[in-house]
Amino acid sequence: MFFMEAFVTRRERFSAAHRIFRKEWDTETNKEMFGLCSNPNWHGHNYELFVTVKGEIKPETGFVVNIKQLSKIIREYVIDKIDHKNMNTEVDFMEGRLASTENLAVAIWNELEQPVNRLGKKLHCIKIKETENNFVEYYGQ
Amino acid sequence: MFFMEAFVTRRERFSAAHRIFRKEWDTETNKEMFGLCSNPNWHGHNYELFVTVKGEIKPETGFVVNIKQLSKIIREYVIDKIDHKNMNTEVDFMEGRLASTENLAVAIWNELEQPVNRLGKKLHCIKIKETENNFVEYYGQ
Amino acid sequence: MFFMEAFVTRRERFSAAHRIFRKEWDTETNKEMFGLCSNPNWHGHNYELFVTVKGEIKPETGFVVNIKQLSKIIREYVIDKIDHKNMNTEVDFMEGRLASTENLAVAIWNELEQPVNRLGKKLHCIKIKETENNFVEYYGQ
Amino acid sequence: MFFMEAFVTRRERFSAAHRIFRKEWDTETNKEMFGLCSNPNWHGHNYELFVTVKGEIKPETGFVVNIKQLSKIIREYVIDKIDHKNMNTEVDFMEGRLASTENLAVAIWNELEQPVNRLGKKLHCIKIKETENNFVEYYGQ
Amino acid sequence: MFFMEAFVTRRERFSAAHRIFRKEWDTETNKEMFGLCSNPNWHGHNYELFVTVKGEIKPETGFVVNIKQLSKIIREYVIDKIDHKNMNTEVDFMEGRLASTENLAVAIWNELEQPVNRLGKKLHCIKIKETENNFVEYYGQ
Amino acid sequence: MFFMEAFVTRRERFSAAHRIFRKEWDTETNKEMFGLCSNPNWHGHNYELFVTVKGEIKPETGFVVNIKQLSKIIREYVIDKIDHKNMNTEVDFMEGRLASTENLAVAIWNELEQPVNRLGKKLHCIKIKETENNFVEYYGQ
Repeated sequence: MFFMEAFVTRRERFSAAHRIFRKEWDTETNKEMFGLCSNPNWHGHNYELFVTVKGEIKPETGFVVNIKQLSKIIREYVIDKIDHKNMNTEVDFMEGRLASTENLAVAIWNELEQPVNRLGKKLHCIKIKETENNFVEYYGQ
Repeated sequence: MFFMEAFVTRRERFSAAHRIFRKEWDTETNKEMFGLCSNPNWHGHNYELFVTVKGEIKPETGFVVNIKQLSKIIREYVIDKIDHKNMNTEVDFMEGRLASTENLAVAIWNELEQPVNRLGKKLHCIKIKETENNFVEYYGQ
Repeated sequence: MFFMEAFVTRRERFSAAHRIFRKEWDTETNKEMFGLCSNPNWHGHNYELFVTVKGEIKPETGFVVNIKQLSKIIREYVIDKIDHKNMNTEVDFMEGRLASTENLAVAIWNELEQPVNRLGKKLHCIKIKETENNFVEYYGQ
Repeated sequence: MFFMEAFVTRRERFSAAHRIFRKEWDTETNKEMFGLCSNPNWHGHNYELFVTVKGEIKPETGFVVNIKQLSKIIREYVIDKIDHKNMNTEVDFMEGRLASTENLAVAIWNELEQPVNRLGKKLHCIKIKETENNFVEYYGQ
Repeated sequence: MFFMEAFVTRRERFSAAHRIFRKEWDTETNKEMFGLCSNPNWHGHNYELFVTVKGEIKPETGFVVNIKQLSKIIREYVIDKIDHKNMNTEVDFMEGRLASTENLAVAIWNELEQPVNRLGKKLHCIKIKETENNFVEYYGQ
Repeated sequence: MFFMEAFVTRRERFSAAHRIFRKEWDTETNKEMFGLCSNPNWHGHNYELFVTVKGEIKPETGFVVNIKQLSKIIREYVIDKIDHKNMNTEVDFMEGRLASTENLAVAIWNELEQPVNRLGKKLHCIKIKETENNFVEYYGQ
């Protein structure tokens, strides 16, 4: 049987508080650069996370990946750590990073790359939808 | 010409941080009652607000209400005060209220009732969607 | 067997051009009142139409109304007349009416009330969504 | 403090197989009446269930109902029994009922009315969305 | 005039029953591997199918492909065969395949590749959304 | 610090009237080729425009692009010119083009490529959703 590759995407959701600012800058400079997003008292979003995994369709199961397993990994490595949390102060994988959606996508990629590899699959894309008008995609380096 | 009544709904959106807790209770009791929502370091949501106004369809314009005007009122009395803010500490109309979606709906009703009346219309419903799975409706007392 | 009443809603869609203006008023007055919607060269929308019918659940079929039949009626009396048309100049049931969403809802109610009655059902609500932010509901007089 | 009533809605989802037919009728009559939905080999849907509960906003919590509790009840009495099941043959609360969306709404109402009452709340509406174009609402008798 | 390539996507929908299982395995092994999806009495979904075609924008029409023609082909080769059917037992192009979303995407690709070629276009992607949280993409071999 | 590339997408919306036809052809030929879309009295749509920009995540801001700036550019070069307008007769960047979604995508690409370059970023994709069932993507030449 010949090789057939497909892409499987799982959506998970989380709600988190954040603030975008550089501590090296004063409040005014932060406000100028980041606008309302720099509010020192935080704001928050419902984030939608789309994790895309790529691999061969296994003849025995018809699956690229067991989506229950994929969901479990995303919950363990990402959702349980960030849902209903403050992204700037409580989430280990965001430590030392500016809390932008781009950096969040990279950080989630780094969290998930190894566990997805251990399933024998390749992580293909992390997409994060912050609002209905804005989203970011990261495909690794 | 006879009277025809219709309902017009405008959706606006805001993102805010919040925390549900009673200061009279300790952290453990708050957690037991409010779960993850009581997180002392805040979390947040993208809220969808649906404001429904009821009134006669005016023969001269075909409108119950000019939706641009309605949108402007909602922005002035609600969105500008709460968007990208901390609902517990920065929003005047939430002062002294537990930051539940129910209380938020009542508070927004109170903010909008008078201005909508001044347009010669009646506020009919405030609906707030906190996540894709949860929403609250308030129709006044 | 006792009486059980339920509400069944069918969504249909149409795309149409329109312009909101009063011919008694000059271009400037129309622009002031109706803004961009008064553009003399037309604009248009994808409209979503929700038709809600109310009635007893028939024991023989488990239906309030056969949704295929309901859909057929909506297509015959509304969609075929307005889809990919100019609402102001080509749609008989909008003749002599300002092309507002409110008036459109009333006109569609008038189109559908009799045919729904002939099915032995009662028309309950016409809801029209003009954009993702604006919708109108009409429940008859 | 005076009484304030609000409506809280929780959405849950399930996927199920079904077939609409009367066993008293032959295949042809069933097909004529129910069309493709009568297919003897089953078909299925992703159902969205919206459960609306009505009650006073409790001053101590700001809640009409604890939405986690409501979700748990819906899962126990409805979702766990019907998700990934055959609605006609495996779901106790659909036994002896034609598997229409209307009957499903009534059956789910009957499942949930008592447990919601035991929370000290009133069940207000069961809404079931079968496809993006069709939904049913039931408000009890 | 120089060459301009674009991608056109048509969405169609179908509802079908299915079951994921290997007949070589007993019920327990199937359940372990496929969970609720292996239920012997079937379950079902509303599937969304996105067919993406790639090609030059024709100067005479401004189209890559006439979307009405594309829709007609998808209906003839896919929707009419699978909508309101049992995917495991009634759909010729799924015969002998495990009824996973991945295999369904490949089978639909195989159904559509030739007819799309006959339009002078190239099939680019088959995307199938099984639930709001899970989807699969297949780009051919 | 090493290079990390990501894709940022901004959605904007506009409503416009249009008609697809070739003036070299008579009404009948236009109707045969373009169907209802050739209606001489226009029709219209709510268009969703997705603009995807690609670039390095800047360490100082965590942004590929400031999404407020991107939104401003899209509004200036596209939305303000086409929203609530007639695409065939009032939009400079559509002059001399058949008003198909494909041509619209190319024209918007041409409008936005330079301004996005001036931000030091690369335009990656223009996606236009004309209805919930049809969309077009253009990635440049």
